[in-house]
Amino acid sequence: MSETDLSPALLPHARDAVRALRPSQIREVANAGLGLDDVLPFWFGESDRVTPLFIRDAASAALAAGATFYTHNLGIAPLRAALAGYVSALHGATAVDHVAVTSAGVNALMLAAQLVVGPGDRVVEVTPLWPNLVEIPKILGAHVETVALDYGPRGWTLDLERLLAALTPGTKLLMLNSPNNPTGWVMTRDEQRAVLDHCRRHGIWIIADEVYERLYYAGEGRSVAPSFLDLASRDERVICVNSFSKAWLMTGWRLGWIVAPAPLMDDLGKLVEYNTSCAPAFVQQAGLAAVQQGEAFTQQLVGELKASRDHLVRALSALPGVDIKAPAGAMYLFFSLPGAAAGSLALCKALVRDARIGLAPGSAFGPEGEGFVRWCYACETARLDEGVARLRGFLEGRRAI
Amino acid sequence: MSETDLSPALLPHARDAVRALRPSQIREVANAGLGLDDVLPFWFGESDRVTPLFIRDAASAALAAGATFYTHNLGIAPLRAALAGYVSALHGATAVDHVAVTSAGVNALMLAAQLVVGPGDRVVEVTPLWPNLVEIPKILGAHVETVALDYGPRGWTLDLERLLAALTPGTKLLMLNSPNNPTGWVMTRDEQRAVLDHCRRHGIWIIADEVYERLYYAGEGRSVAPSFLDLASRDERVICVNSFSKAWLMTGWRLGWIVAPAPLMDDLGKLVEYNTSCAPAFVQQAGLAAVQQGEAFTQQLVGELKASRDHLVRALSALPGVDIKAPAGAMYLFFSLPGAAAGSLALCKALVRDARIGLAPGSAFGPEGEGFVRWCYACETARLDEGVARLRGFLEGRRAI
Repeated sequence: MSETDLSPALLPHARDAVRALRPSQIREVANAGLGLDDVLPFWFGESDRVTPLFIRDAASAALAAGATFYTHNLGIAPLRAALAGYVSALHGATAVDHVAVTSAGVNALMLAAQLVVGPGDRVVEVTPLWPNLVEIPKILGAHVETVALDYGPRGWTLDLERLLAALTPGTKLLMLNSPNNPTGWVMTRDEQRAVLDHCRRHGIWIIADEVYERLYYAGEGRSVAPSFLDLASRDERVICVNSFSKAWLMTGWRLGWIVAPAPLMDDLGKLVEYNTSCAPAFVQQAGLAAVQQGEAFTQQLVGELKASRDHLVRALSALPGVDIKAPAGAMYLFFSLPGAAAGSLALCKALVRDARIGLAPGSAFGPEGEGFVRWCYACETARLDEGVARLRGFLEGRRAI
Repeated sequence: MSETDLSPALLPHARDAVRALRPSQIREVANAGLGLDDVLPFWFGESDRVTPLFIRDAASAALAAGATFYTHNLGIAPLRAALAGYVSALHGATAVDHVAVTSAGVNALMLAAQLVVGPGDRVVEVTPLWPNLVEIPKILGAHVETVALDYGPRGWTLDLERLLAALTPGTKLLMLNSPNNPTGWVMTRDEQRAVLDHCRRHGIWIIADEVYERLYYAGEGRSVAPSFLDLASRDERVICVNSFSKAWLMTGWRLGWIVAPAPLMDDLGKLVEYNTSCAPAFVQQAGLAAVQQGEAFTQQLVGELKASRDHLVRALSALPGVDIKAPAGAMYLFFSLPGAAAGSLALCKALVRDARIGLAPGSAFGPEGEGFVRWCYACETARLDEGVARLRGFLEGRRAI
C-alpha cells in the first residue's frame, strides 16, 4: 500500500441521508449483553426453532441436483405458480404474472419502494413500526410522515380519520404493516376498505407488509388476517409484500414475495436484476416445498403461538404495574413496564445487565413506541416462565430501592 | 375482490426513473430462442459447470446443523475473518472490520452506491459495461456519464486523459469494472495509480467492481488482476466489490463481499439491514468453505478458462471478417462480426433463430458496444467448436445471399 495524504475533509463517511438512518436500538441492547451467556433472548423477531426438516431437505436435494445457477429475475416458474395458488386460496384469484419472488421480505419492501417512490416523494406510515419500513423510503430520498396508533383500554387502535387526513392529495405512498410489528395490531376489514377507497380517490399507492398474515389468532381454521388482497383488484395501485420467515420459520433463508399489478412486473424484474438478480436457486426450491407441503406445519405453529401468547399475557398480567391486552396478530407483546416511560432503551439495557432478560425497547420502533417494551413469545413456555420470573425479581428489586 | 373504478390516469406504472432503466437485451435475445431446445447458450455470464461438491456439501451440512437463523448484518464472524485473510494475502493487510458480506456481488454494488450517491449526484463510468453498474445509480436519482474505451489493434484500451477530464471537481463517484465485462479489458497498475491520485485530489469516491479479479491470464501462479486495494489505504474513499460467483462457480448462490473504510461499516450495516438484512446463514457457511478450501479449485479453473479463451480466439480468428485480440481478463470475447455494425441486437436474434447460437448483443452494454457481440467461453471446448462451426455456416450463408 502506498502512503496516503488525506486532509480531514476527505476522511470517508457515508452521505448524510444514510448517516441519518436509525441504527438498531435492539442491537444496542443486545450489545449490552455481549459476553453474558445466560441472557434469555426475547428481543429479536425470530422463533427459537430451526426450520422444519422437510424444507431443509428440499434445499439439500436441490444442491445435490446442481441447482446452483442463476434463475429468472422474478423467480423459478414452479415457485411463482405455487405462490399464485397459495395466494389465490387465501385471497381470491391471483395469476402467476402478478407474483414475483424476492431475496427476503425486507428486500421485497425495498424493491416495492424503489418501484414507486423517488426523491422528494411524500410517504405516510402508521407507527409504532418495525424501523425498516420507515427508513427504506429515506434511502431513496423520500420524506416519511407518521401517524401514531392510540393505546388505550382496547389495546392498540387506529384513529382512521387521522390517517385519512394525513393521506393528502399528492401523497405518493402509504406503507402499512398489519398484523403489526411491534404492537400486534391488526387492521380491520372496514379500515382497509376506507383506506383503499381514499387512496383510490387520490391515486396514492399502498405497499402492504403482510408478512405476519398467517400469525393471526382471531380467525378459525386456516387462519389469515384481513388483507388488502381481499379488497383490491390485482391491477390497481396496491403492492402486497410477504415472506417465508414467519409462517414456515425460514428467517435465515432470506426469501419473500410480492403480489403486484402485472404491468409493473417488467420494471420489477429490472429492479430485481439491479438489487440481487434473483434469490438463490436452491433456496427457491426450499420455498416451493414450504408452500406445497407446509400448510399443516403452519397451522400447528399458529396454534402453538396462540397458546404462547395467552400464556405470556396471563403471566405478565400478574406482575404489579403491568397491564396487557392480547393482540390479534404477529408474535409480540408490546406493553408498558414500570420505569419504561423514563426511557425504554435504558430500561432494556438494565434488564439485560441486571436480570439477564433480552427485550426490545419500544423506542426502537419510533418515538411513538417510547414507554413500551417488545417481547417476542415465539419460544418454549418454560423459557417464557423463566423470563417472567426474572422480570418479577427485577421489578421487585427496583421497588425495594 | 370488489369492483374497481379506475380512470386511465390511475392505471399503475412504475415511476419514470424506473421505467427508463434499460431492460436486458440479452434476455430479449434469449426470449427469441424460447421454444428452441438446441440453442448453444454463450450469452450469459455463467459457467456451464455446477458449483464444486465440497461447497455444496458445506451448505447442506450447515442446513442439517440448523443454520437457519438471521446472522449479523455484516456477515458471520468466521466468513468475515476468512475473507480478511484472503484479501490480505492477495492485496496487503486488511482487517476484518473492513470486510462485509453481501447478498451477491450486484447487491454489494447497490449497497456501495447507496452509501455514497444520492439524488442529483454525478457518477462517471467506463463503457462498454455490464448494464447493472450504469443503472444502479439512476435508481438512487444520480446522473451517470460514460467514458468509452477505444477499440484498436491492441484490443480495448483506455484513453486515460479523457477519463481524468471527465472526473471533474464535484463528481461524486467513479464506478469501474476491471477486469471488465464485456470486453475483458484490464486496467493497468499505472492507470489505477493515476486515477486514484486524481480522485484523491478531488475527493471523488471510487467503487471498484473487481469480481473478475481472479480470472486474469497475464499473471503467474496465484493469478490476480491489478486492484485498487494494492494502491489505496483501507481508510480512504475506495470501496472494492467482489463476488463468489466467478472464482468458485457460485453464480446461483448470490453471495458477495465489500472491502471498505472501517468508519463506513456501521452505516453499511444499516443499509444491509434495510436491503436484505443478511445473506442466508448456510450460504455464508458454503462461502467459508470456498474461501478456506477453494484455492486449488480456482487456480485449476483459471487455467482451464485461459485454455478456452485461447482456443476460441484461434477458432474465431479463422473466420472471414473476424478479428480478435485475446483479452487479459474475465471470461468473454467481445468482438465485431460482419453485420453487427448494422445492429447487434438484430444480428444476435438472427443468430439464435437461424444458427442456434446464443450470443449477447454488444448494444446490451451501452451504445459504445454497438457493432460487437459478447461470447462467454466458460464451457467445454467441444461446445465452443460446435458454436464456431454454426457461426461459420451462418456467415457463409449470409455472404451467399
